Amino acid sequence: MRDVVALIGSGLIGRGWAMLFANAGSDVRIYDVDPAANDKARAAIEDNLRALESGRMIDSAAALLERMTWCASLESAVDGAAYVQESVFESLEAKRAVFEQLGRATSPQTTLASSGSGIPPEDFMAGVQHRERCLIAHPFSPPHLIPLVEIVPTRWTSEHTIKATIARLEALGQRPVLIHKPVFGFVVNRLQAVVIDEAISLVRQGVIDPADLDLCMSHGLGLRWAFMGPFETMDLNAARGFKEYVTKYGDFYQTLLGTERPARPWTGEAIERIEAWRRAACATEGDVAQRRLWRDGMLMKLARLLRGPRLGR
Amino acid sequence: MRDVVALIGSGLIGRGWAMLFANAGSDVRIYDVDPAANDKARAAIEDNLRALESGRMIDSAAALLERMTWCASLESAVDGAAYVQESVFESLEAKRAVFEQLGRATSPQTTLASSGSGIPPEDFMAGVQHRERCLIAHPFSPPHLIPLVEIVPTRWTSEHTIKATIARLEALGQRPVLIHKPVFGFVVNRLQAVVIDEAISLVRQGVIDPADLDLCMSHGLGLRWAFMGPFETMDLNAARGFKEYVTKYGDFYQTLLGTERPARPWTGEAIERIEAWRRAACATEGDVAQRRLWRDGMLMKLARLLRGPRLGR
Repeated sequence: MRDVVALIGSGLIGRGWAMLFANAGSDVRIYDVDPAANDKARAAIEDNLRALESGRMIDSAAALLERMTWCASLESAVDGAAYVQESVFESLEAKRAVFEQLGRATSPQTTLASSGSGIPPEDFMAGVQHRERCLIAHPFSPPHLIPLVEIVPTRWTSEHTIKATIARLEALGQRPVLIHKPVFGFVVNRLQAVVIDEAISLVRQGVIDPADLDLCMSHGLGLRWAFMGPFETMDLNAARGFKEYVTKYGDFYQTLLGTERPARPWTGEAIERIEAWRRAACATEGDVAQRRLWRDGMLMKLARLLRGPRLGR
Repeated sequence: MRDVVALIGSGLIGRGWAMLFANAGSDVRIYDVDPAANDKARAAIEDNLRALESGRMIDSAAALLERMTWCASLESAVDGAAYVQESVFESLEAKRAVFEQLGRATSPQTTLASSGSGIPPEDFMAGVQHRERCLIAHPFSPPHLIPLVEIVPTRWTSEHTIKATIARLEALGQRPVLIHKPVFGFVVNRLQAVVIDEAISLVRQGVIDPADLDLCMSHGLGLRWAFMGPFETMDLNAARGFKEYVTKYGDFYQTLLGTERPARPWTGEAIERIEAWRRAACATEGDVAQRRLWRDGMLMKLARLLRGPRLGR
């Protein structure tokens, strides 16, 4: 019997899931509430798959496309599905409505996963039939080139659902990480938030220009973080490892961090300066579109370098 | 007339500078206060150059080694040098002593740059003869594979010194960024600090395991940051660019960051947990040495992918 996966929402994230699941051999059923979205998504997936094929990360774009079915209703998409991944617009009302519909339309054994990136999962999974099968599996854009997935269970999610979802995503070549406790924004966006907050603050203080701030990451810190996390980076930077690093540099970092950091709203002249730099670098819609293609091309090259020549390995 | 560069201190950082300057064609004079350091440094440089040669990032290790002279005194090293790069131990007393000695031993036209990573430059450059030629050029380890250099002038540094140093480092293939105002820890370590601080806090709260925290970077955020800074990442993640991103997600991030964040010392059980994970992953000194080789190999692969096949391009 073929494994059937249903994807609800065919935006950027839904398309990434479609390619990953089709690449792993599943039958992929795609539904979007907007009938016009499917045509757009299909064209975008075809473009992406051609790029993957010409990069030899997949053998045949046609074979993957053949495993995708574009459905006219949520009910027809989920019929017989073992796993559903919801990737609709980030709105509590939209997610709650979809999840309640999914709860009614699926058998109790079907896992219901959400790509939600910020709304606490309890807020839209509470009223779902058999809610022990619901959890968040939060990917990053584009999912077929960035393997991380944050697994965020609710207090009702069963151990079986967590383990089966992790195993399923690992089989795609993704790297799920488990968020043990409710925390606003999960983990990745919290790490991103403190960097953006400090970066804007440094531009606001006139310490550094926006372009140079970005270089500090892309030509400095980011080169290590592309293949090692912050803890391993510290561990390799002191003769006796992580703990020695903390002991040796702890005072320096505490002085740097200060004793308190009040909220620093992302507003004002610094925001205008950064925007002005970006628009000088990327003036037209066409420039931006080109730069997005460049980004995805770089991510593909990194995927091949860091994880091997095939999609999902 | 050949360009002469003097390097004071032959540790990890000094060795990186030696390879970069020799690769750019300068005569490199190396001095270390510890007579045993030179032999160790020379052997390490030979290893590094062999790796670069076999990776075809340089043509000839021998040619670069031939441009390096190992000196028995600071005075003989700086004789005739147009540029001096100090990379001694991070101690105020050591740096102050070296800079005062450099001030006396060099002509007023010689640029005196420090690799210092944290001590405010005014604290050890104030008493140097012709202090307008002194500044910090803070590299990252290993400098021959990580191009970023933070340029930190003092209030006395001349415009000419700043511009000439930036031009000199760009000619090596490095990417200098200018720090306009005194700020404790400069910029890169401030960005690193807020990530480490949040990462330790999330482990302490039991939100995520140390290994998974590191994956959030190496298999998520870090993949983008390897080639784009945080501002460009935001810019490409909203249809109308950076400012739209800030408007759209500002409230989410402000809620996440909270209204105040008191100091969170890097101590206690979370530190033990992270250390325990690292030692389980890398138990012996030999394991750690292997892992450092792996890191440098990865950085070399990234350098080739992101900046081209030759050292310093």
